[in-house]
Amino acid sequence: MWFTSDNAGPAAPEIMGAMTQANTIYSQSYGSDQIMDRVRDKIRDIFEAPDAAVYLVSTGTAANSLALASMVQPWQTIYCHRHAHISEDECGAPEFYTNGAKLVLLDGKDAKIEPSSLSQAIANTGLVGVHNVQKGALSISNVTELGAVYSVAEIEALCAIANANDLPVHLDGARFANALVHLGCTPADMTWKAGFETVSFGGTKNGCIGVEAVILFNPDRAWEFELRRKRGGHLMSKHRYLSAQMDAYLTDDLWLNMAAKSNSMAKKLSDGIANTHGGILLHPTDSNMVFAGWKRSGHRAAQNSGAHYYLWPTEEPLEGDNDETLTARLVCNWATTNEDVNKLLSLIAK
Amino acid sequence: MWFTSDNAGPAAPEIMGAMTQANTIYSQSYGSDQIMDRVRDKIRDIFEAPDAAVYLVSTGTAANSLALASMVQPWQTIYCHRHAHISEDECGAPEFYTNGAKLVLLDGKDAKIEPSSLSQAIANTGLVGVHNVQKGALSISNVTELGAVYSVAEIEALCAIANANDLPVHLDGARFANALVHLGCTPADMTWKAGFETVSFGGTKNGCIGVEAVILFNPDRAWEFELRRKRGGHLMSKHRYLSAQMDAYLTDDLWLNMAAKSNSMAKKLSDGIANTHGGILLHPTDSNMVFAGWKRSGHRAAQNSGAHYYLWPTEEPLEGDNDETLTARLVCNWATTNEDVNKLLSLIAK
Amino acid sequence: MWFTSDNAGPAAPEIMGAMTQANTIYSQSYGSDQIMDRVRDKIRDIFEAPDAAVYLVSTGTAANSLALASMVQPWQTIYCHRHAHISEDECGAPEFYTNGAKLVLLDGKDAKIEPSSLSQAIANTGLVGVHNVQKGALSISNVTELGAVYSVAEIEALCAIANANDLPVHLDGARFANALVHLGCTPADMTWKAGFETVSFGGTKNGCIGVEAVILFNPDRAWEFELRRKRGGHLMSKHRYLSAQMDAYLTDDLWLNMAAKSNSMAKKLSDGIANTHGGILLHPTDSNMVFAGWKRSGHRAAQNSGAHYYLWPTEEPLEGDNDETLTARLVCNWATTNEDVNKLLSLIAK
Amino acid sequence: MWFTSDNAGPAAPEIMGAMTQANTIYSQSYGSDQIMDRVRDKIRDIFEAPDAAVYLVSTGTAANSLALASMVQPWQTIYCHRHAHISEDECGAPEFYTNGAKLVLLDGKDAKIEPSSLSQAIANTGLVGVHNVQKGALSISNVTELGAVYSVAEIEALCAIANANDLPVHLDGARFANALVHLGCTPADMTWKAGFETVSFGGTKNGCIGVEAVILFNPDRAWEFELRRKRGGHLMSKHRYLSAQMDAYLTDDLWLNMAAKSNSMAKKLSDGIANTHGGILLHPTDSNMVFAGWKRSGHRAAQNSGAHYYLWPTEEPLEGDNDETLTARLVCNWATTNEDVNKLLSLIAK
Repeated sequence: MWFTSDNAGPAAPEIMGAMTQANTIYSQSYGSDQIMDRVRDKIRDIFEAPDAAVYLVSTGTAANSLALASMVQPWQTIYCHRHAHISEDECGAPEFYTNGAKLVLLDGKDAKIEPSSLSQAIANTGLVGVHNVQKGALSISNVTELGAVYSVAEIEALCAIANANDLPVHLDGARFANALVHLGCTPADMTWKAGFETVSFGGTKNGCIGVEAVILFNPDRAWEFELRRKRGGHLMSKHRYLSAQMDAYLTDDLWLNMAAKSNSMAKKLSDGIANTHGGILLHPTDSNMVFAGWKRSGHRAAQNSGAHYYLWPTEEPLEGDNDETLTARLVCNWATTNEDVNKLLSLIAK
Repeated sequence: MWFTSDNAGPAAPEIMGAMTQANTIYSQSYGSDQIMDRVRDKIRDIFEAPDAAVYLVSTGTAANSLALASMVQPWQTIYCHRHAHISEDECGAPEFYTNGAKLVLLDGKDAKIEPSSLSQAIANTGLVGVHNVQKGALSISNVTELGAVYSVAEIEALCAIANANDLPVHLDGARFANALVHLGCTPADMTWKAGFETVSFGGTKNGCIGVEAVILFNPDRAWEFELRRKRGGHLMSKHRYLSAQMDAYLTDDLWLNMAAKSNSMAKKLSDGIANTHGGILLHPTDSNMVFAGWKRSGHRAAQNSGAHYYLWPTEEPLEGDNDETLTARLVCNWATTNEDVNKLLSLIAK
Repeated sequence: MWFTSDNAGPAAPEIMGAMTQANTIYSQSYGSDQIMDRVRDKIRDIFEAPDAAVYLVSTGTAANSLALASMVQPWQTIYCHRHAHISEDECGAPEFYTNGAKLVLLDGKDAKIEPSSLSQAIANTGLVGVHNVQKGALSISNVTELGAVYSVAEIEALCAIANANDLPVHLDGARFANALVHLGCTPADMTWKAGFETVSFGGTKNGCIGVEAVILFNPDRAWEFELRRKRGGHLMSKHRYLSAQMDAYLTDDLWLNMAAKSNSMAKKLSDGIANTHGGILLHPTDSNMVFAGWKRSGHRAAQNSGAHYYLWPTEEPLEGDNDETLTARLVCNWATTNEDVNKLLSLIAK
Repeated sequence: MWFTSDNAGPAAPEIMGAMTQANTIYSQSYGSDQIMDRVRDKIRDIFEAPDAAVYLVSTGTAANSLALASMVQPWQTIYCHRHAHISEDECGAPEFYTNGAKLVLLDGKDAKIEPSSLSQAIANTGLVGVHNVQKGALSISNVTELGAVYSVAEIEALCAIANANDLPVHLDGARFANALVHLGCTPADMTWKAGFETVSFGGTKNGCIGVEAVILFNPDRAWEFELRRKRGGHLMSKHRYLSAQMDAYLTDDLWLNMAAKSNSMAKKLSDGIANTHGGILLHPTDSNMVFAGWKRSGHRAAQNSGAHYYLWPTEEPLEGDNDETLTARLVCNWATTNEDVNKLLSLIAK
């Protein structure tokens, strides 16, 4: 029973199979492989974006940082939620790749940016001209870091504010598929049609080994992106193994099926906890992450029986007489089973 | 017949098998996987360096740049050969990761640094105090970018010059195994015993999918290295797949056997060309790379029959009446066969 | 009547005289001038810090950024008040000089950092290890950007929190003399004895042409500071003209007398506004800055009669029937006269 | 007798007078002063460039680095002479300000770039696409670091090569006036008409206190330049004192008269050494710098009698029986007198 993170689980057999298949041939290096040509076509097709530039890297931090660096100047701002992964969990990678752009932290429930918070922050930027950092870009995470999914209307509203100020918008889509499955819209609807210019399209958390696509709907700075990727050490020589993962991921709806599976497991888990005595939910379970609380004794029972997950937002001692409610983050992945969930729920309920 | 690069070839079956094996388990992320514990132990054992810090990344550019950034300050120099990969083939990644350290380019035959060139460059650095960049580190590639291998005595001599000036030394070991097999010494002999502090230990070019180890024999800045790796987007979440590659690579001498194979294929190829009418060798064939020339008509025959390789140092037209000698770079890998080599030689000889 | 900024006023005659005097001799360049030797001695003496390293630069932004860059690593935090000059008014210079360190913004009245806000921010830093930026340094402005002066006890409390977490503390003393005069303590009391490691000691705003000292009470990184200064283009070749300013500034209590004068003018202005019908004070007038409000009609009268100052925090139209209270920032300098203040007060009161 | 550097001498009385005059008024800050308006007009007029953007900073390193940072991307090259100030004497400031652009070092006599060296370097840049740094900008020093002055035809030839490759060209004009006086052409002739886009126009070395103009003939990136200047800490708050220097410098041909004076003193000195027994010249004396050699005994006599200058390229002991020729760099400035020169010559001849 592993609920620590989506990245604790295995890769899908289809992904592994594609790796093996890619291994049978000699190939051009550095992204000139034929599998990449197929991947590019698929992504353009799926996103209804025939001119989009498409690149692969092996980590989400690289995808986000390279995307943002191609969108802002060093003396500009990146507006994001206070709990955004780019702010809290990347050890300053965006600042490194942008050579010091400033993240301006916004508020909002469930790690969703409140539109008024964005408007206010933009209005406050650059009031004294050259003395201030200047307006740069907006970055939105969908799924958010607290498991919520913005509706299409919500992201349209945020993008509209940004675009009205001539700011490009970046999507941190580390859990893109989970959000898409929840929304039931098209990939275009939740990206460029809503106002996004650049997307980090995650694969790693959803059953791949390690691959993320960066999609530039505005290809004007595509060559710059390629140079930044190389300069960051993120151009894989045997790139075909990235391509192969993404190719399989996008074949026969594998990506959507895996996300649907992990979302449904999370929902089942979430519902179960809500129905447990003392169980509470901290955030809506829109995707594959559950933020919930239950009795300390239930945590003890679960962890003593081999359940892996993190108390949230901070670790707490499980021992002690006080049977208060402790909160946790539980993440499902494509391989999470009904048995896993049922077993955890039964332990919690003890 | 692919001789474009070592990275054009497939990964070894053992590597693929380890990936599959790693995929059967849930695991901690970000380098806390148990396979990494095993890898660390193996590398410390192989290098007779029980205190070394060991990290994995997915590209050679990342390994080199992160290693160098942990060795020099932004206002310092990195001495390297004029044809070093870090100077010519990484799009300025060392400058990016070090925040602007200065590569000082040295001369020498076969891309080996001439000791007098190093001594002179060091002596010329920092003569006017604060106005100058300051002495930083030395970086040596072994195998060199022109296929030569420094003897242990040669690297000892260079390291001695650097160390006498309090400069740490970095080894770009993208083809470490090929050099080691050629030298027949121990890994310790060609690294810390010779005076190196930090090693980029390559796997990608020698039968892996994409994995390089960085070995810090001086672990004082290990934590800094970890932060730089994360900040550079090079900490893989599903790190176990890097670990698995390196684990298999170091098992049952796989790494040595593959290097021995590619070295021997290169030697066979090199000897064959030397014995061909009009054939010349540009550099010694100490490893798995052959720099050689033969008649334009032989190139035409080879490439028309499906041989892949690059003319070197620049592309030239294959057509034309003038049957002069054109030079090329030919790289063998672990999967290069006798048939490949024989076929190429027969085409060349036409 | 200029109250826009302390930097709108002239330099003191003593400063100009020192420049003229410095111009009569040939001199070593780049800080090796004999006047600098005298300046160094004076600052060490005034601060009771015989081992301090002392450097001069020509702007406050350079002083702050170079000081901070010598105190934190790129992957670390700089804790500061939300309204700190380094956050709001330097166009990201600290991020540029530190190669991307992260400013963590703290709250507190009158732009003074609330100790609990600092404690909380430190406690929240680095909880997830390598994924987070790490604890770096604390920067305190005294005088604050809203004209308040921390008591010695207040800065001791903040420094104690920082030092208990092994964080060095930087003082942005752009208005150092104004704070010192207000506090009536020794320079040592408000700096190293309170727990500061590095001080930006301003001269420009207090009657100089353009000179700031950076004082490193811990000289371990003095050489690094010198290299950073040069690399930032802040090592003046004809450095004697910086030295001369600072030398005169510190002679015969000129610095203290000028600060006393500007503080007293601000107090007179502040008291006058408080006694004006409709007059309000936004922040305590501890130094040479007054943040106050009065009737729109009074602003109109003042500005039409040649008073220069900025409405604060944002410009507002002065025309209109609505005679509501509008707020402003008024800054006195050493050359501000009783006549200036009286005239402004009489205009406001109309 | 100071011949160590042009920056060892005093500022001109006219410059000091302008400082005093600027001190009599209150003024807008940060470059909005009225004196700057006048400076801008004068420079546009002198350069016949009505659209040029003009900025002032206080050091040559700042001028060069900010200019170059506005011309190249971090992954691009800056071609310059091996002995260029930006390469040898700025502690890596160009790398810092550009975030790691690569200086490609060119050869040529008297520190003049040989056109074929430039052509070859450009031709060798970026041959392998994304793996290489890309072509960026050319930087030319006129006067060169070895005292030579490029003819207009020579700079036109270099600019033509650069411009044919779409590379903008920067002029390090730390000794602009000295070159101009030597050439007898117009400022436009030796800048934009020859193909330069950006000029560092020095004042400090030629009788100012510390001021350099940066002139952007292509103002497209003027706002970016302003942000970079602020972010680098180079926007002076009391900017009027920079303006005042430059204003006086450009009034009544002061700048030209001072340069003519220092050039003529150098010529006199140079001729005198050439006519001394054992005297040799290393480089042409086109400007205010003399690179020359004479007997060790002559050096001893000179320095024992109070002559200040540096042996060149490295210090040598003056004592010893061996009366071989030692070489030196001697720099004249506007205040150098006939007496200074005559006295030095008589000492040398002893």
